Amino acid sequence: MTVDTTPRAEAHRVERFLADLGDIGRDPRGGWSRLAFSPPEREAHSLFAQTMTELGLAVRTDAIGNTIADLPGREPGPALVTGSHLDTVPQGGNFDGAAGVAAAVEVAHLLAETSGLRRPFQAVAFAAEEGARFGAPCIGSRVATGAFTAETLRGLLDTDGRSVTECAKEVGLRPDDVAAGVWQPGSIAAFLELHIEQGRVLEERGRPLGIVHSIGGSTRVELTFSGRADHSGATPMWLRQDALAGAGEFVVEVERRATLHPTTVATVGRLEVTPGSLTTVPGTVVLGLDVRDVDSERQRELTESLLDEAARIAARRQLQLSAELLSDQSPVVLHKTVQDQLAFAAGRLGIRFAVLASGASHDAAHIVKLAPTGMVFVPSHEGVSHAPDEWSDPEHIARGAEVVAHAMKALDEQELV
Amino acid sequence: MTVDTTPRAEAHRVERFLADLGDIGRDPRGGWSRLAFSPPEREAHSLFAQTMTELGLAVRTDAIGNTIADLPGREPGPALVTGSHLDTVPQGGNFDGAAGVAAAVEVAHLLAETSGLRRPFQAVAFAAEEGARFGAPCIGSRVATGAFTAETLRGLLDTDGRSVTECAKEVGLRPDDVAAGVWQPGSIAAFLELHIEQGRVLEERGRPLGIVHSIGGSTRVELTFSGRADHSGATPMWLRQDALAGAGEFVVEVERRATLHPTTVATVGRLEVTPGSLTTVPGTVVLGLDVRDVDSERQRELTESLLDEAARIAARRQLQLSAELLSDQSPVVLHKTVQDQLAFAAGRLGIRFAVLASGASHDAAHIVKLAPTGMVFVPSHEGVSHAPDEWSDPEHIARGAEVVAHAMKALDEQELV
Repeated sequence: MTVDTTPRAEAHRVERFLADLGDIGRDPRGGWSRLAFSPPEREAHSLFAQTMTELGLAVRTDAIGNTIADLPGREPGPALVTGSHLDTVPQGGNFDGAAGVAAAVEVAHLLAETSGLRRPFQAVAFAAEEGARFGAPCIGSRVATGAFTAETLRGLLDTDGRSVTECAKEVGLRPDDVAAGVWQPGSIAAFLELHIEQGRVLEERGRPLGIVHSIGGSTRVELTFSGRADHSGATPMWLRQDALAGAGEFVVEVERRATLHPTTVATVGRLEVTPGSLTTVPGTVVLGLDVRDVDSERQRELTESLLDEAARIAARRQLQLSAELLSDQSPVVLHKTVQDQLAFAAGRLGIRFAVLASGASHDAAHIVKLAPTGMVFVPSHEGVSHAPDEWSDPEHIARGAEVVAHAMKALDEQELV
Repeated sequence: MTVDTTPRAEAHRVERFLADLGDIGRDPRGGWSRLAFSPPEREAHSLFAQTMTELGLAVRTDAIGNTIADLPGREPGPALVTGSHLDTVPQGGNFDGAAGVAAAVEVAHLLAETSGLRRPFQAVAFAAEEGARFGAPCIGSRVATGAFTAETLRGLLDTDGRSVTECAKEVGLRPDDVAAGVWQPGSIAAFLELHIEQGRVLEERGRPLGIVHSIGGSTRVELTFSGRADHSGATPMWLRQDALAGAGEFVVEVERRATLHPTTVATVGRLEVTPGSLTTVPGTVVLGLDVRDVDSERQRELTESLLDEAARIAARRQLQLSAELLSDQSPVVLHKTVQDQLAFAAGRLGIRFAVLASGASHDAAHIVKLAPTGMVFVPSHEGVSHAPDEWSDPEHIARGAEVVAHAMKALDEQELV
């Protein structure tokens, strides 16, 4: 093993890459808007390509805009891959995704400065991870796994009704040709992604690193409680069918049941009252429920039991209830082998870590279908994400990159595929 | 007493007046929009004035647009007055207020066809009862009592920032001259108002008439629960400060406590969630609370105890709470003498009635400061009000007008002021 001779990751280089990236896609309204398949996203990919080229890697961009930098190994074979994405939500921050690409740049530095790996190495910037523009997240990685085809892309529309195909062509990509670029099973040996936590667990626990054991699934349902809009003065309590009183009871119950298991989260994040007048008993409430767990069965059971509870509340209150499933994504368990090597590397480097689940989804949740996959988290300052104030310490990102590089070297010496 | 010789009120005349009125202020989006101080409101007053003139009454319009039709008594003295208003909320119905003016027309018919009263009689259409345009309701009746002065009117603005003064002038009124027209104490002997119930109690109980014992007060408070907007996937339940979970608990508690006393109603009719995204823990909730009771002390005590409960919920959940008093109107108890005469008249006419409180406020709640005041309600079909589907049976309105006329004759023979 060459672990001990690996040079240290440099926080100032991470900081510099993120500062250069921060000049791209600044939104005059605040934060960064490097939307999926927009010119600023492509500009960010060019910065990554240029940085990798200067480091001596061979860079290519595939038909959907994933940018891949190759460093040959001492032997041919499946590649060890690390990376994340460079696009943002509208008025987002400069760390979600970017931190993982900055870490990939740093890993490439560490490998380029030493003897490299036995296997080939790839640093990747996936295209269009954020679902904000086209509804569907992880477009680049899902094209890579073959889950999204040229036809899928033609059917994904933004709020202006323009398809991924149309928008990707506008920025010089070839979305009709994605079939040829699908990553074949066996073509990669392992995938490691560093990402900001987007939560506050690491900060609360005072740990500079998180090792992710699984990526939570998410079931999203829209519920509509319908009662009667009545005059708030003229309608006694016993004659009311108050949609908001029913919805309020439901919101409290969602919280109570989600709290029963530590890996479960359930959220009512959206709730609209109609007619929404101070002096009218609410006639209709539409709300969005998001149930997440790393245990697929618990995720579905909790969703079912909450829908049952909503039905009981509605029946008791003479409200009408309707429910529409918006999406249903299963949880993903990450590979134990990769987790173990990440934990071992962190231990050797003296970095205290927490093992935790990812509530948010990531490119890793798709690449896991092709190869052993692991993720590390760095703390998000105050848990802020998808907002201009998003911030992670470059020192934490550099240490995370070091852990990824060390784990990669150890995996390089194992038979994985 | 001349009760037995009074001719019967005619539903077809009520229906005809409401049909003529229904041609005024039809809103192309549905319903009627005869807004306070708009040309359609003035046109409705002209219809009333013309109808009364044809019946032989002397009609005048005061500086703020209240239209008053006078029928002299056999002796001079304070007048017996009945009436309501002709304006509507935007896209409202054709019965709220209008039913009471139609009843006043019918009472005038009954009196004109018989020997009339000893005292003078007045039928009145108040201006601008609905608060929808300028925030403040009952502008016409509050000008009549002197509660609103020319200066008040200059400070009341609509959503375009235009004052009552400006808008009233535009439709030919003289809002700067209202002082001269204030009704003097002792100038009226009694006031009786027929109004649609705007609720469902009469319909539920199968009664064609309600006699109102009091008009509920209303305390309105805006509450803001502030927590933290966090990622719904990345933030475990134990780290959340979910403003909507707190607000949901509060909504349920509002309902629970309001149900403890039959005359109490409390409503959260408005509730807005920020940022309102399916995948974000709600950071802020602003809601509007409306507490009503016919018992002033209970109204204030319930409001206080709900604010205390909100503070407890916020403290337990580490939320910030702020509360702003929007308005506070005391309940009004109507005169027992007038109630008794209304009940006696209904009994003689064989009309079954319920005695109930008015949750909504009315012009009567202001005129009560000048003279003994009573109200009767007619059933609202399915309780619908402030909506195009508002409907009351003209037969009920005619019977209500008869009760008012009979009670008025009885009051005419009593010493009241």
